[in-house]
Amino acid sequence: MTQIRVINPNTARAMTESIGRCARAVAAPATRIVAVNPAMGPASIESHYDEAMAVPGVLAEVADGEADGADGYVIACFGDPGLDAARELARGPVVGIAEAAMHAATLVGRGFSVVTTLSRTAGRAWDLAARYGFRDACRAVHACDIPVLELDAPGSGAREVVTRLCATALERDGSDSVVLGCAGMAGFCAEISAELGAPVIDGVAAATKLVESLVALGLRTGKRNEYAPPIPKPYTGLLADWAPAM
Amino acid sequence: MTQIRVINPNTARAMTESIGRCARAVAAPATRIVAVNPAMGPASIESHYDEAMAVPGVLAEVADGEADGADGYVIACFGDPGLDAARELARGPVVGIAEAAMHAATLVGRGFSVVTTLSRTAGRAWDLAARYGFRDACRAVHACDIPVLELDAPGSGAREVVTRLCATALERDGSDSVVLGCAGMAGFCAEISAELGAPVIDGVAAATKLVESLVALGLRTGKRNEYAPPIPKPYTGLLADWAPAM
Amino acid sequence: MTQIRVINPNTARAMTESIGRCARAVAAPATRIVAVNPAMGPASIESHYDEAMAVPGVLAEVADGEADGADGYVIACFGDPGLDAARELARGPVVGIAEAAMHAATLVGRGFSVVTTLSRTAGRAWDLAARYGFRDACRAVHACDIPVLELDAPGSGAREVVTRLCATALERDGSDSVVLGCAGMAGFCAEISAELGAPVIDGVAAATKLVESLVALGLRTGKRNEYAPPIPKPYTGLLADWAPAM
Amino acid sequence: MTQIRVINPNTARAMTESIGRCARAVAAPATRIVAVNPAMGPASIESHYDEAMAVPGVLAEVADGEADGADGYVIACFGDPGLDAARELARGPVVGIAEAAMHAATLVGRGFSVVTTLSRTAGRAWDLAARYGFRDACRAVHACDIPVLELDAPGSGAREVVTRLCATALERDGSDSVVLGCAGMAGFCAEISAELGAPVIDGVAAATKLVESLVALGLRTGKRNEYAPPIPKPYTGLLADWAPAM
Amino acid sequence: MTQIRVINPNTARAMTESIGRCARAVAAPATRIVAVNPAMGPASIESHYDEAMAVPGVLAEVADGEADGADGYVIACFGDPGLDAARELARGPVVGIAEAAMHAATLVGRGFSVVTTLSRTAGRAWDLAARYGFRDACRAVHACDIPVLELDAPGSGAREVVTRLCATALERDGSDSVVLGCAGMAGFCAEISAELGAPVIDGVAAATKLVESLVALGLRTGKRNEYAPPIPKPYTGLLADWAPAM
Amino acid sequence: MTQIRVINPNTARAMTESIGRCARAVAAPATRIVAVNPAMGPASIESHYDEAMAVPGVLAEVADGEADGADGYVIACFGDPGLDAARELARGPVVGIAEAAMHAATLVGRGFSVVTTLSRTAGRAWDLAARYGFRDACRAVHACDIPVLELDAPGSGAREVVTRLCATALERDGSDSVVLGCAGMAGFCAEISAELGAPVIDGVAAATKLVESLVALGLRTGKRNEYAPPIPKPYTGLLADWAPAM
Repeated sequence: MTQIRVINPNTARAMTESIGRCARAVAAPATRIVAVNPAMGPASIESHYDEAMAVPGVLAEVADGEADGADGYVIACFGDPGLDAARELARGPVVGIAEAAMHAATLVGRGFSVVTTLSRTAGRAWDLAARYGFRDACRAVHACDIPVLELDAPGSGAREVVTRLCATALERDGSDSVVLGCAGMAGFCAEISAELGAPVIDGVAAATKLVESLVALGLRTGKRNEYAPPIPKPYTGLLADWAPAM
Repeated sequence: MTQIRVINPNTARAMTESIGRCARAVAAPATRIVAVNPAMGPASIESHYDEAMAVPGVLAEVADGEADGADGYVIACFGDPGLDAARELARGPVVGIAEAAMHAATLVGRGFSVVTTLSRTAGRAWDLAARYGFRDACRAVHACDIPVLELDAPGSGAREVVTRLCATALERDGSDSVVLGCAGMAGFCAEISAELGAPVIDGVAAATKLVESLVALGLRTGKRNEYAPPIPKPYTGLLADWAPAM
Repeated sequence: MTQIRVINPNTARAMTESIGRCARAVAAPATRIVAVNPAMGPASIESHYDEAMAVPGVLAEVADGEADGADGYVIACFGDPGLDAARELARGPVVGIAEAAMHAATLVGRGFSVVTTLSRTAGRAWDLAARYGFRDACRAVHACDIPVLELDAPGSGAREVVTRLCATALERDGSDSVVLGCAGMAGFCAEISAELGAPVIDGVAAATKLVESLVALGLRTGKRNEYAPPIPKPYTGLLADWAPAM
Repeated sequence: MTQIRVINPNTARAMTESIGRCARAVAAPATRIVAVNPAMGPASIESHYDEAMAVPGVLAEVADGEADGADGYVIACFGDPGLDAARELARGPVVGIAEAAMHAATLVGRGFSVVTTLSRTAGRAWDLAARYGFRDACRAVHACDIPVLELDAPGSGAREVVTRLCATALERDGSDSVVLGCAGMAGFCAEISAELGAPVIDGVAAATKLVESLVALGLRTGKRNEYAPPIPKPYTGLLADWAPAM
Repeated sequence: MTQIRVINPNTARAMTESIGRCARAVAAPATRIVAVNPAMGPASIESHYDEAMAVPGVLAEVADGEADGADGYVIACFGDPGLDAARELARGPVVGIAEAAMHAATLVGRGFSVVTTLSRTAGRAWDLAARYGFRDACRAVHACDIPVLELDAPGSGAREVVTRLCATALERDGSDSVVLGCAGMAGFCAEISAELGAPVIDGVAAATKLVESLVALGLRTGKRNEYAPPIPKPYTGLLADWAPAM
Repeated sequence: MTQIRVINPNTARAMTESIGRCARAVAAPATRIVAVNPAMGPASIESHYDEAMAVPGVLAEVADGEADGADGYVIACFGDPGLDAARELARGPVVGIAEAAMHAATLVGRGFSVVTTLSRTAGRAWDLAARYGFRDACRAVHACDIPVLELDAPGSGAREVVTRLCATALERDGSDSVVLGCAGMAGFCAEISAELGAPVIDGVAAATKLVESLVALGLRTGKRNEYAPPIPKPYTGLLADWAPAM
């Protein structure tokens, strides 16, 4: 049995459940998905500030996962918050959903478009595309300007807006696929893909399969240097409990 | 049941069997691996010329796979020969082993080294790294200068040579992992990894899991434009049977 | 007397003749142009698949050229099919027409636009621009969506369509020149250039002059490593005759 | 009077004082340097994990600075932790010391070498160089492998080790200058520079002058989009007080 | 007292005075601005040719500055003419205004737009952005197509045209700031910035502060190699007096 | 008859003659080579300063060439001084020898090494490689540290030193060819190439053939925008005669 801990970095419980469902929908029978979110931090992540403040909670969840025997981790926010730190902390592989979605997109075509929530998050998406090697493959980042927590509000029409934006993106950018730029859009993926007749990629599902694959391959983060466990040392004050253990 | 056709682009039957074993070793229970090689073409692939001449055979195997209901394909030569053409031809996803190994490497660390057979193939490895977005992540390409078909010759000492080169590469390049640059090295992977205590990546296994993942995710090559099926037209002479069907 | 073998990679004899005329129109008096096309393969090249399947025929023509004492080669299809393999095979220089046209364009201005046939071929043009170092110089790739073999159909109006697209490209992209993205457009070059008052570049002519220049300079492909002659080895089946000679 | 808040992201009070001295040594007479460190978080920053866990403290210091009327901020750790988030939070400019040192280095020469503490931090330095546009200008990152808090230990010989490494770096990399890769090395800067007869750059001093300059120029972070203030929303648990104010 | 020599590379005296005023407006009390222009060369710089022909005059001004004890230099034309040569000649730091403006822009946001005079100068702006590492940060270069010397012609309406173009640029490019692409626009900066509510950057002011900062930091151009003083040797003819002194 | 003006940017008459010989040795029978050097400027070019000060003389030679009916130009110094300005001035094509040599090198292999005179000029070589698109193809720049004017001093042993450095470069860089980084090395080219059995490229010869080719192709610098003739305007003082004609 492979245990994958899927961490929703915000505190929105309903979103965690939806993320868990999306992960389970694609996981292998022998994979157990543990979908969690931190007990602390931002209700949603829509700025660099939110993202930075979500990281301690994410890392607490990784620490809990290590205690719980998790085989790998998904960080289920499109900014991939805390990814490098989580890789230091975890024995098994850690994959972010932006990372996973972009990897998957480049396996099913040359170029992809990202459809995200708020336009202020586009810079982060470009940063990640560059970091992962996909600056050329990423054709454009489009924002629907719907806040994260309104994506699944009944009657919000969010799915329709996102669908139209995906269609526009494919057309305008000449892309082969669309990457959904928020874990809160995971539930839309199948329908939009069916409607557009083109690959539409949800990072939650993609990351789940990539972590599962890495575990099956026996591949873990290389620990020789940059991603060695954090050096034990004292931490002070509110975050003292986060001090890396000896 | 997911059927993945793992195509060894050369005609070395023993290598096809070894490749099949490596794929099966990591495949999910519900995956059927069909390991094949063309009935035509080069005995091994060690030049641009060999690679180009292997492509018709690879594409014939893809066409057979389509007839046979294959859900996805692995191209099991580190030059990823015919990858773009195969993506046009196949309904399901197609992944090359260089592509897969490099993707996997960037998920378990920042930088990787490639250890390959002949030094003349390094240019192709760099081309592929650049094409896939991993030019910066790829730190160096090292050649052991053992011909492909001698890798598993009894008493060749190939495994030892490759192991030493992997160790040197990790040290010199400051890499987090090593990518094995030939399908003929697939059988060495687990042992070298265990010996070095660092991720060593075999593209055959990695590609098998990536194709499996894409199939599970319902992701196929985007067909809107560049990767649409080849346009039907007449082909002449020796390769007339390869003409794209109407 | 310098002999340049200009290889049209498709089997369209009329196109070969037109290509030969364009090469002869710019060749030096002491240059003999031998314009050929394979006896096998696709009638036209409009996909990665067509391109891959044209390569064995191209390489057969290179082998014939070697037997015939050719001093250099032009590969006269804008995808530059088989270029690396041909460089291994040939003693003299080999230049592709996309390569030649892009080189020439960067000598007469900072940025160029490509005007090509089908939009599905744009990805290949971008790949080549990146491979040759001209990713920044290449401003855009525009498709007229006229199939290759209809370019010279009487009454097709192809020349007018291509001319208008060149004008639009110069305007929109702020380019200094236009590169014609198909050997089938070679015959349009002079007229479009005259009409637009801007450099319009046909790769067939450009490659002919570049090969002539390299021969005059005594420059051949470096053979120390990557482009050494293919290693002799057995090939099986339909392509057995292509086996690299001992 | 310009008030610049120089934030040492770790909790080492002695280091904060040394950083404050280095900033004051170069500040204009009309500049008031307020050197602070968080009341919480890691004692030193030597991993992605430490860095991530230092960010809440850094952002608390920025919030305090806003209340206190700070005109600009220096983030005085070579990983530039929390820089993007701080830019959202602050009205005035925010500059990281890696950022500042690299900018300064490219103004006094073509290429620079970084001399840092632990080799595991080199990846972060490369990330930042790439993010700031200096991937080509950054020639190499060298680690002295002395922990941050031992840099100023009496009798540690750290200054000599760092000096020798700077000399080696200049020689080996053909660089025009050396960037010191840790705020804890700030005190070494003048002496090493004098000894080597080449520009040696301390990011604390450089960032202080850059912030001062931006303030004098009336330049603040652009707030139209990505760097707009964080959207007010509830935060939960331990970090509830960090919730962006309405 | 720090002496900064601000060199207007063209011979337009009125422009030199305006440039001097802009530099003095931001300089520290202890800084003396010496604004000069060559006695020779082009009346304005609007082509590569003008720029090249302005360089001897610029370098004569640097030589005079050296004799006069200048501590640093600003080259106040957006093509940064003669920058590398001036760095060889001067003991103190030399900064170009395109360089300074682009550096400042990347400190107050992710992306910037350039608004320049004639569209024919855009290529040079892109060259400089690439050279300084800001090719990705530079989103677009927009030309108002007003000649340099008409920028301050009474009744020209230039300020309004430039303001509108800045507004359009911010909107269209999603930039965080605008860089003014001509020293002749320096006087517009404060008003445009106030009107648009976004950072608008004048390179003259920015370069003045950067040179002041480098001087305060004790940083001069590295002289170990590329920027060592020019090798003494004879020069002939009209420019004989420019021969590097022994 | 095609007239190509080969401009040696320094004032060393003997070097001009040697350059003329090298150009004539490869020129077509119908090409007339006019080898000239300015009557003014530096005796040799070994710094950014020398290079900048050589440009007025180069441009005077281009102006004379225009009056004399030159069909194209070679700028025969490896820094390609004044290239952009010359392209504005000339009706026909202008090619620099660094540009030509690098273009030729990428046509005969994947990677090349540059062997140049003084190490201080390496930065310029890298700048040009980047500008022309060959940053990846250029593997390394090696300096022999022999001054330009001593290259052909009898008994200097320069040829032997350069030959050894070429051999080392090929070996160490894994390059396919070597580019000679100074017009003063043109005379060594054939012998070194013969001795090493690898392509060794002299930019003077390469540029001559490229200009000849562009003329034969009817290709001139695009004049729509950046490279339009310099705008007529007054120039003052010593360089008043250089003012662009109305």
